[in-house]
Amino acid sequence: VHKSSAKTIGIVGGGQLGRMLTQAAIPLGFKVLVIDPNVPSPAAQVGAEEITAEFTEAEAIKKLAKKADYITIESEHIDAKTLDEISKLGVPINPSPKTVQTLQDKLLQKNFLKEKGIAVATFAEIKNSEDAKKTLKKFGGQMVLKTRHGGFDGRGNALVKNAEELKKALIQFDGKLLYAEKVVAFKKELAVIIARDMKGNIKIYPVAETIHERNICQQVIVPARVSASATKKALLLAKKVARYLSGAGVFAIEMFLTNDGKVLVNEIAPRVHNSGHFTIDACATSQFEQHIRAIAGLPLGETTLLTPAAVMVNILGERSGEVDLRGLDKALELPHTSVHLYGKSPTKIDRKMGHITALGDSAEEAIKLALLARHNLSV
Amino acid sequence: VHKSSAKTIGIVGGGQLGRMLTQAAIPLGFKVLVIDPNVPSPAAQVGAEEITAEFTEAEAIKKLAKKADYITIESEHIDAKTLDEISKLGVPINPSPKTVQTLQDKLLQKNFLKEKGIAVATFAEIKNSEDAKKTLKKFGGQMVLKTRHGGFDGRGNALVKNAEELKKALIQFDGKLLYAEKVVAFKKELAVIIARDMKGNIKIYPVAETIHERNICQQVIVPARVSASATKKALLLAKKVARYLSGAGVFAIEMFLTNDGKVLVNEIAPRVHNSGHFTIDACATSQFEQHIRAIAGLPLGETTLLTPAAVMVNILGERSGEVDLRGLDKALELPHTSVHLYGKSPTKIDRKMGHITALGDSAEEAIKLALLARHNLSV
Repeated sequence: VHKSSAKTIGIVGGGQLGRMLTQAAIPLGFKVLVIDPNVPSPAAQVGAEEITAEFTEAEAIKKLAKKADYITIESEHIDAKTLDEISKLGVPINPSPKTVQTLQDKLLQKNFLKEKGIAVATFAEIKNSEDAKKTLKKFGGQMVLKTRHGGFDGRGNALVKNAEELKKALIQFDGKLLYAEKVVAFKKELAVIIARDMKGNIKIYPVAETIHERNICQQVIVPARVSASATKKALLLAKKVARYLSGAGVFAIEMFLTNDGKVLVNEIAPRVHNSGHFTIDACATSQFEQHIRAIAGLPLGETTLLTPAAVMVNILGERSGEVDLRGLDKALELPHTSVHLYGKSPTKIDRKMGHITALGDSAEEAIKLALLARHNLSV
Repeated sequence: VHKSSAKTIGIVGGGQLGRMLTQAAIPLGFKVLVIDPNVPSPAAQVGAEEITAEFTEAEAIKKLAKKADYITIESEHIDAKTLDEISKLGVPINPSPKTVQTLQDKLLQKNFLKEKGIAVATFAEIKNSEDAKKTLKKFGGQMVLKTRHGGFDGRGNALVKNAEELKKALIQFDGKLLYAEKVVAFKKELAVIIARDMKGNIKIYPVAETIHERNICQQVIVPARVSASATKKALLLAKKVARYLSGAGVFAIEMFLTNDGKVLVNEIAPRVHNSGHFTIDACATSQFEQHIRAIAGLPLGETTLLTPAAVMVNILGERSGEVDLRGLDKALELPHTSVHLYGKSPTKIDRKMGHITALGDSAEEAIKLALLARHNLSV
C-alpha cells in the first residue's frame, strides 16, 4: 500500500445521500469515511470506509473528526453541539453547526426566516393543549401540527381539521416539542437547490416542481411547470435565503406556490436533498459533487440543465422483506432513463430504495418515461 | 448482513476501466468482483470486491467464474483459452472468447477485417529479418513494425524509416511475433464507440477525434472536427464492423481519416476505451453503463450527446513518486469541467492517472477549458 496525500471527507451518515456524496468525492481524489449503523452501509458499498455506530453518537462523531479533513452531515437531525465542539478543535464542518442548530428545530427555522423577512406560512408555537385549541381556532379550524425536531418524510406532521383529530395528534406527538402552521392553499410545491462555497459565492439550480404523496417525495419535475413569473419569484426567494445562511454546502429550499401566486418557503434542509437527485443525470455538476466542492473549499461547478426536461421518481419499497430486483430490463429499455439503486436491504413500505431519472424534450415525455420505468421495476 | 439476490459482475482487471465499470454497475444493483494485483485496486476503491492476482492468471479467472454471474474483461491481452473453458461451463463471458482471440492478435485482427471487406492499412506478416527488409522496401522505405500481441499505449509499435532503425526495432522486439503496416498519411485519427447487446442490437456513439502523442491518447474531441461526409463514412464503417463482431459489449473502433479522404480501421478493442471516457459526462448513457447493460443481457441505452461539444484530456503522470494532487481548485474553477481521478499511486511518467472532461458550446471552447484544467492540475 502506498502512502497518499489524499484528504478525507467525513460524513455523519452513510445512507443514500452519503452514498451519492461518496460516489462524487472519490473521483475528485478524496477518501471518504462515514458513520453508519449498517454494515455495509450504502456509502461503504461504493468505497467509503465506515465507523459502525448510530450517527447521533457524539463519540463516533469525535472519532470521525480525528480522521477527517472535512466533516459534513447526511441529516440535520444530529447533535449540533457535538459538531460545534469539533469545529472549535479546528476541523472544518459544513453546513456550519450554527446553521444546523437553527434549521434542525423547525420552529427556530421558521422564526429565523420570518426575522429575515422571508415569506413563510403563518405559524405558532404550541406549548400545551390549550395553545393547540386556541391556534386551531385562530387558524380557521384547520392546521398542520408538527414536531419541532426530527420530522422527515411526513413523520412528525399531522393535518388536523377538528377537535377530535387534534386530540389524536396530541396523543401521537406526546412528549415532543410542537408548533403549528396554517394550512397553505397551494397550486404546486417547488424546490430549489442552492450551493454556497466558502467564499460566499452562490450557485442556484433550476426550479423543480415536487410532488408528494403520504408526505413523501414521489416525483421531481424540472423545469417546474409554472409561469415564468413564479419561476422568477422562486429563484429570487432562493437567492435571498442563500444570503442569510452561513457556512458552505448545498441547501434545499422547499417552497409553496400558493393559489394566489405567491411563493413561500416551506422548509430548508442544510444538505443534499431528494429534490436534487435529478442533477446527477441532468446537470453539469450534480448536487453531490457540488456539496463536496463546497465543503472542501473548492470552487462551485455550473448548475446548467443539459436537457430540456428531467424527471426523477423515487423507488419506494412496496412490501417488507429481502430485496428482489425485477424488471430492470423493462425499466432500462425506455430511452434516456437511468436507474440508481441504493443497495439497501431489506425493503420496507415507503423506504427509499433508489430513484429513476428520465430525460426528455418535454416534462410530459420525461414524466411518462420515468413513471413507466418505475412501474416496470420492483425491488 | 442481509441476504441479497444481487447478481455479480466479474471483471478481469481492476484498473481505471474496471473502476469506471464498477461505478456504473453498482447503481444498477450489481455486485462487482475484480481480479487485480494491486490492493486496493482502483476498482476496489469504489466498491468492487477483489481477488488479488495477476489478471493473466488462469486460476484467478476460474475463481472469478465460480462467484460471478457475468464475466467481462478490462483488457484484451488475457488468456482467451481460459475464458473459452469457463464459457463452456456456462458462465456468460463478453466480449466472446472468440472475439477476444481474434482481436488480441493484431495480425489475426487485420486478416479478419480484410476478409470482411473492411478497409485497413496495407499490412504484412514479419517472420524474420529477411521478411522485414523486403517489406520495408515494398512499403516504400518506411513502415510501422508492430508486435502482434500485448501492445498498448504505443508499446510494441516502432516507426522505421531505414535499415538502421529496422535493425534497432528488431532487437527491441526480439522474440516477439511481429507484423508490419504501411504508414498511412492521415489528416485525423477518429474513434467510434459501439455497443452490441445480446440480441445483436447496436448503438453507436458520436464520432470522436483522437489526438495521440508518444502513441498515447492525449485528447478526444467530440464531435470530430471533420466534414459531414467523413463523419458519415466513419459511422458506416463502425456499423459494418459491428455486424461482424460476435458477443455483447462495448467495442472501440479506432480509425484513420486519410489525406485523400478515406476512412480506414486502425484497430479494434473489444472493451470500453479511453476514447469513450467523454461519454460519462457528455452522453445519455456512459460507455461503462452501456457495457454493463450489454454483458448482463439488459437493453442498451441512448448514446445521444447532451452538449454541443465535449473534450477529454488524459491526466498522464509527469514524474515518478507518490501522488501529490495539486491545483484541483484551479481546475474546478473552470466552468463545465469534470475531474476523474483513478486512485492510482505511485504516479509514473505517462501513467494514466485520471482524465478531465470539459463540455462546451463548441469544440474550441471545450478544448481550451480541458487543456487549461489539465495545465492547472498536477498529480
